Amino acid sequence: MLSETFKVRFYETDALRHVNNTVVPQWFETAREPIFKLFNPALNLEQWPLILASYTVDFIAQIHYGLDVTVKTGIRRVGNSSFVVAQEVWQAEQLVAKGETTLVHYDFVTQKSCAIPLDIKQQLTRYLI
Amino acid sequence: MLSETFKVRFYETDALRHVNNTVVPQWFETAREPIFKLFNPALNLEQWPLILASYTVDFIAQIHYGLDVTVKTGIRRVGNSSFVVAQEVWQAEQLVAKGETTLVHYDFVTQKSCAIPLDIKQQLTRYLI
Amino acid sequence: MLSETFKVRFYETDALRHVNNTVVPQWFETAREPIFKLFNPALNLEQWPLILASYTVDFIAQIHYGLDVTVKTGIRRVGNSSFVVAQEVWQAEQLVAKGETTLVHYDFVTQKSCAIPLDIKQQLTRYLI
Amino acid sequence: MLSETFKVRFYETDALRHVNNTVVPQWFETAREPIFKLFNPALNLEQWPLILASYTVDFIAQIHYGLDVTVKTGIRRVGNSSFVVAQEVWQAEQLVAKGETTLVHYDFVTQKSCAIPLDIKQQLTRYLI
Repeated sequence: MLSETFKVRFYETDALRHVNNTVVPQWFETAREPIFKLFNPALNLEQWPLILASYTVDFIAQIHYGLDVTVKTGIRRVGNSSFVVAQEVWQAEQLVAKGETTLVHYDFVTQKSCAIPLDIKQQLTRYLI
Repeated sequence: MLSETFKVRFYETDALRHVNNTVVPQWFETAREPIFKLFNPALNLEQWPLILASYTVDFIAQIHYGLDVTVKTGIRRVGNSSFVVAQEVWQAEQLVAKGETTLVHYDFVTQKSCAIPLDIKQQLTRYLI
Repeated sequence: MLSETFKVRFYETDALRHVNNTVVPQWFETAREPIFKLFNPALNLEQWPLILASYTVDFIAQIHYGLDVTVKTGIRRVGNSSFVVAQEVWQAEQLVAKGETTLVHYDFVTQKSCAIPLDIKQQLTRYLI
Repeated sequence: MLSETFKVRFYETDALRHVNNTVVPQWFETAREPIFKLFNPALNLEQWPLILASYTVDFIAQIHYGLDVTVKTGIRRVGNSSFVVAQEVWQAEQLVAKGETTLVHYDFVTQKSCAIPLDIKQQLTRYLI
């Protein structure tokens, strides 16, 4: 699995003195950058090839300020034009949140989904869990 | 259903020139404020009685800057200590995103879930869809 | 002065149980939308005519969850290609924050500043304080 | 000077395909964590000893997605109860933004500022620029 470690940022906490629930999709998006590069090696913003269809997040334990978090990222399954990314947040050796995100290979000019090229499918498959 | 209208904020857009996917849970949380008030009428931050267990978001169409969005909020089901909120985002008379959030009646002192009081159950039931 | 009222959003609080300092520039940007429309009436993202040069924010009192905030927006001065927006945040009839933002009329194609058209200068002048 | 490097996060961009102006105070706050630890070594959220009085940000060049940014942090001056942090954002060996933030040693119980202890003053002085 891919792995990315973040400091918890103070502004990411809320009045309950833990990390606010809306932050986890932000960490997940950031930890998907290596997946973005499989489709768009230069991260060219003028020709972005992916769109997000849905996500789920499960919160397992409170996430605290002052300790790093690690996001682990793998691929759950690969379809014709879409694929599912599975991600976990770990803090202090505890699984604290997990989620799945469905992304679609997408042409923003025609506004249509399109098949994932075979070579990218093979690369995605390396991260299958 | 409850209804809350927001301006799309410029910083909520991303380089794809639409609203970034991580913004929708922020709108959903804000639109749940009347639900928070059923449990905590004064919105007292020292004795907050709810914790979020999970959510899902489905993205149906791109959300654009320059047009207001309306979030509609109802209750999908009510359990003993938890309940599910169903929410939709509408823009230009089109359903653009929807999601469900599971909240738990929670005691932050004992760190345990607790039964939803009967009178609050009845109030939640008014928003059942 | 222009005026815009916002609910404080729960995720905008931090572990100190007040609104985090990084939120005020977000409210200020949102409250500048009528200024954006003077330069770009359709809010066309493909031909955005302004860039931000600097801002200052002074925090006068803590901003709390549960009470609306009102942002008042005026123009401090208008130069050849730039102008300064002055903004205040009020909550419970108290001034809680204020700031100034310098914006530049900008051509993103040539990456150069350009003179503010006379008719827009006249419209900005209506909000001078 | 203290130094902290961040990936630019996709959601931090806006429709102008650069990093939104409201993100820089978020990076600055995160890069001040070693300063927070001088006052509060365990980063105890129940007894936070600092409040933010004001900040300024100057934007020198556009900040882009796909390249890391480094925030350099030093101390501009130390007063009796307040001090000024000076920070810079660098990307691709170019200074792209800078700012100053005034923080106050603060007692959230009495809601009053208080003198900075001598030993912390000495530690702050190590970062004077």
